[in-house]
Amino acid sequence: MPHPYVRIFDTTLRDGEQSPGASLTSAEKLEIARQLARLGVDVIEAGFPAASPDDLAAVTLIARDVGSPKDPAARAPIIAGLARANRDDIDKCWQAVQHARHPRIHTFLATSDIHLEHKLRMSRGDVLTRVRDMVAHARSRCQDVEFSPEDAGRSDRAFLCEVLSAAIAAGATTLNIPDTVGYTTPQEYGSLIADLIAGTSGAETVTWSVHCHDDLGLATANSLAGVQAGARQGEVAVNGIGERAGNAALEEVVMALHTRAPVFGVKTGIDTTQIARTSRMVANYTGIPVQPNKAIVGANAFAHEAGIHQDGMLKHEATYEIMRPETVGVTASRLVLGKHSGRHALAARLVELGYTLSDEDLGRAFAEFKRLADKKKVIADADLEALVSDELAQGHEFFTLDGMQVTCGTMGMPTATVRLRGPDGQLHVVATIGTGPVDATYKAIDAMVQVPNTLLEFNIHAITEGIDALGQVTVRIAGEGGSQAFDAQKERPRARTFGGYGADTDIVVAAAKAYLSALNKLAFAMRASGAA
Amino acid sequence: MPHPYVRIFDTTLRDGEQSPGASLTSAEKLEIARQLARLGVDVIEAGFPAASPDDLAAVTLIARDVGSPKDPAARAPIIAGLARANRDDIDKCWQAVQHARHPRIHTFLATSDIHLEHKLRMSRGDVLTRVRDMVAHARSRCQDVEFSPEDAGRSDRAFLCEVLSAAIAAGATTLNIPDTVGYTTPQEYGSLIADLIAGTSGAETVTWSVHCHDDLGLATANSLAGVQAGARQGEVAVNGIGERAGNAALEEVVMALHTRAPVFGVKTGIDTTQIARTSRMVANYTGIPVQPNKAIVGANAFAHEAGIHQDGMLKHEATYEIMRPETVGVTASRLVLGKHSGRHALAARLVELGYTLSDEDLGRAFAEFKRLADKKKVIADADLEALVSDELAQGHEFFTLDGMQVTCGTMGMPTATVRLRGPDGQLHVVATIGTGPVDATYKAIDAMVQVPNTLLEFNIHAITEGIDALGQVTVRIAGEGGSQAFDAQKERPRARTFGGYGADTDIVVAAAKAYLSALNKLAFAMRASGAA
Repeated sequence: MPHPYVRIFDTTLRDGEQSPGASLTSAEKLEIARQLARLGVDVIEAGFPAASPDDLAAVTLIARDVGSPKDPAARAPIIAGLARANRDDIDKCWQAVQHARHPRIHTFLATSDIHLEHKLRMSRGDVLTRVRDMVAHARSRCQDVEFSPEDAGRSDRAFLCEVLSAAIAAGATTLNIPDTVGYTTPQEYGSLIADLIAGTSGAETVTWSVHCHDDLGLATANSLAGVQAGARQGEVAVNGIGERAGNAALEEVVMALHTRAPVFGVKTGIDTTQIARTSRMVANYTGIPVQPNKAIVGANAFAHEAGIHQDGMLKHEATYEIMRPETVGVTASRLVLGKHSGRHALAARLVELGYTLSDEDLGRAFAEFKRLADKKKVIADADLEALVSDELAQGHEFFTLDGMQVTCGTMGMPTATVRLRGPDGQLHVVATIGTGPVDATYKAIDAMVQVPNTLLEFNIHAITEGIDALGQVTVRIAGEGGSQAFDAQKERPRARTFGGYGADTDIVVAAAKAYLSALNKLAFAMRASGAA
Repeated sequence: MPHPYVRIFDTTLRDGEQSPGASLTSAEKLEIARQLARLGVDVIEAGFPAASPDDLAAVTLIARDVGSPKDPAARAPIIAGLARANRDDIDKCWQAVQHARHPRIHTFLATSDIHLEHKLRMSRGDVLTRVRDMVAHARSRCQDVEFSPEDAGRSDRAFLCEVLSAAIAAGATTLNIPDTVGYTTPQEYGSLIADLIAGTSGAETVTWSVHCHDDLGLATANSLAGVQAGARQGEVAVNGIGERAGNAALEEVVMALHTRAPVFGVKTGIDTTQIARTSRMVANYTGIPVQPNKAIVGANAFAHEAGIHQDGMLKHEATYEIMRPETVGVTASRLVLGKHSGRHALAARLVELGYTLSDEDLGRAFAEFKRLADKKKVIADADLEALVSDELAQGHEFFTLDGMQVTCGTMGMPTATVRLRGPDGQLHVVATIGTGPVDATYKAIDAMVQVPNTLLEFNIHAITEGIDALGQVTVRIAGEGGSQAFDAQKERPRARTFGGYGADTDIVVAAAKAYLSALNKLAFAMRASGAA
């Protein structure tokens, strides 16, 4: 067995961001990358640079910032970018990741017969040559090259070993084995990893990596089986997000390795107390909620509230508990700030919470904080996180909400009057009726903004307890007329959808903000594609 | 290896209902039990009769109805009730389940040293005697007796075999092995089951059963490992609900066995096309949402929409797909009914969807349907399901919403005027301001209803696409002054929380309905405990 350190490779910003509606802005990606660095992940897969100019820019930004800390003594995570096995993708990837202190090019090619026949239309010989050439090309750019045989779970074992041996010979330093369609059982996946390590020439010179999908609910178990078989890198996403049923959840893989350390005999570099905060940030920015019964990060995941170490009613706390909430950073609500707290106190607390805001954003967040403190007695960390998310979500270059007034109820004529400031700086006002207050509000906004779209999802939840709580709204919209992105991994177009986020004590106002933030993203994408 | 049929034992109504806030009314439990029968589960664990008179009544109702179909040729699922290993619990359980055609008593006692010492304060010898006596007592009442050694995952292996052998000798027909705290790995749990089958006298005469919790994200994998080791019953809950991170999800265990049939070599009696509908019903009634990336039943779980069998852009659908959405009953939205549809058409469609409404409830649902059809062009099955859930959630014995009018927006004075009809038949009206429209509405309701409580959770989501969609609100409240229930399994009090549900095109009206439905449950519980 190899050394006992398992690298955590986080793909929230690449595979996770491919979830329907998870589209993140560059600012959101950067905040998440900073938090991932704080969490202690070893590798951040920041995106797929060849997929679009936006992706290229975001990976570059993260490589320059998170990947290259000013303090030379500070720990810098590896910044990886995904690239198909072709020269152009690999060069674009290098262009973006080279700014990191530890850059990595992650290239892939499918090896299963079903993919060779239906997607690639390549022979096995073609695949072998392509892998050899492109891994060598990547290695000529970058010392750290990862190669993934896509759909390894359904590939012929002997052919797979041949491809992987060729990748090692050409300079690959990490070999990642994806169960792309989430089809294998832990036994199968564990044997696959063991067989590949046994059958590949030079296996002992590289790091083996697991990448599992959760279509049958087995992603975590499969990842662990791979580690037991000798893998020393786990590719995971926060909250288990990703296409379809998503990727193996970072929090589950890490906490299983941590909680059952004697069984697995390995360790990770993760600061587990950052898990809860990272989970909330990813849920807020992607608009993909976490169900209450989600392992580790769900609202009900722990039997007992944080901070309750003694409980007369409970005869022995270990009776029903295998982890303490504090271990993953679930802390009792703290009343951190009140209405008399100043801008400096807010800034200090935000830094503790892991946010780095520009002066301008901090100014806006402070104004919102004072407005909230006037209405709500208790301001918890979660409220501050919502305020900051709201600030980041509101684009300031497009239409912004200037004021609104809504009447609704059972009399059947919900009416909204909305005033927006347009990109030209002018104020526009429209009043409309709808089937409910949100419908009326959105129709009023539509009348001014005029970006045709369909509302796909709409969710609100209260952030903290109590009816005076902040309401948090996430929406997802699709542009009309088939706004599409090119899915470079699958080499086919995919419908482009845009998430929006808003928070306010008035849920109808929060709904308006969320809609405007999604419209901003859609309008920006339309302008970008129009210009391209 | 035993025969290839794996019984599916559904514990949504017992272990699932122990989720915080999942409290279900008897009417909701009955509807879910009927749907579970349609889904084809072999055993419905309907509740814990000794826990409260409500539980006893609900289990009795389900045993008489779902457990005893009028048509003697119709398939009747086994109806089980949980009972601690004492005479009183077992007798109460029998009192409830005896009305089913196939009744089962499920009794349990902890066997791990940590439980013996800290909870039971019993010696191993005491445990052995108690199991022998109480299984024999249960068997004297009922031919079908299941025994569970609680916290088996952390129990001494040899002692466990001794206890299980004694249970078989005393007449147990099913032995269930719970991993109560969700601590084991698939390898450990599989070996546990194999060792117990090997080490227990009479093992071949009983059905072995798995019961896994998801604290480390391994419940599904552990359940499957148990089946591979010889277990032929899986205890599961719809959507994986349950305390903390919940139970193994029915849909994951069933679809893994189904999709990978050649690997597992077993079959179940589940009609998989009923899975999606069952999942929606349980989410609606419990108020516990399913995250979009949840395996099998999440909104994003499938790569392609139902109904799309041909897609020019997709070269071969199996490339990225291991299950068809239709297999689990995810169907393309159907426009089933329009504004000219009559009461009969609505009733017929509701029967197809699996609902059996009283004439009175149908009348109310029809009125709501017409009201909705006036506002919304497209009425999908999901809309009808929401309407019915809304009807079931509204108690009609307490305060009901008669009318309301709300003004909100950015001017900072959200105001709600709410008119309720009280239990006395009189109308009451109150106007209040709040921090937002929901806060104002809830304060107005509080002023009339006067049942002190804390709002713990508040969620809204749109049921179907489009901004004219129905909004669906779920809330969870706790009574003030520590309204508590006795948790009979853990033998300690637990805080009682109450869920509420409402649906309307106006989300503020839906929020009012949801709050009233939760208040109805809380008021009913307070009256019941006051009378006891």
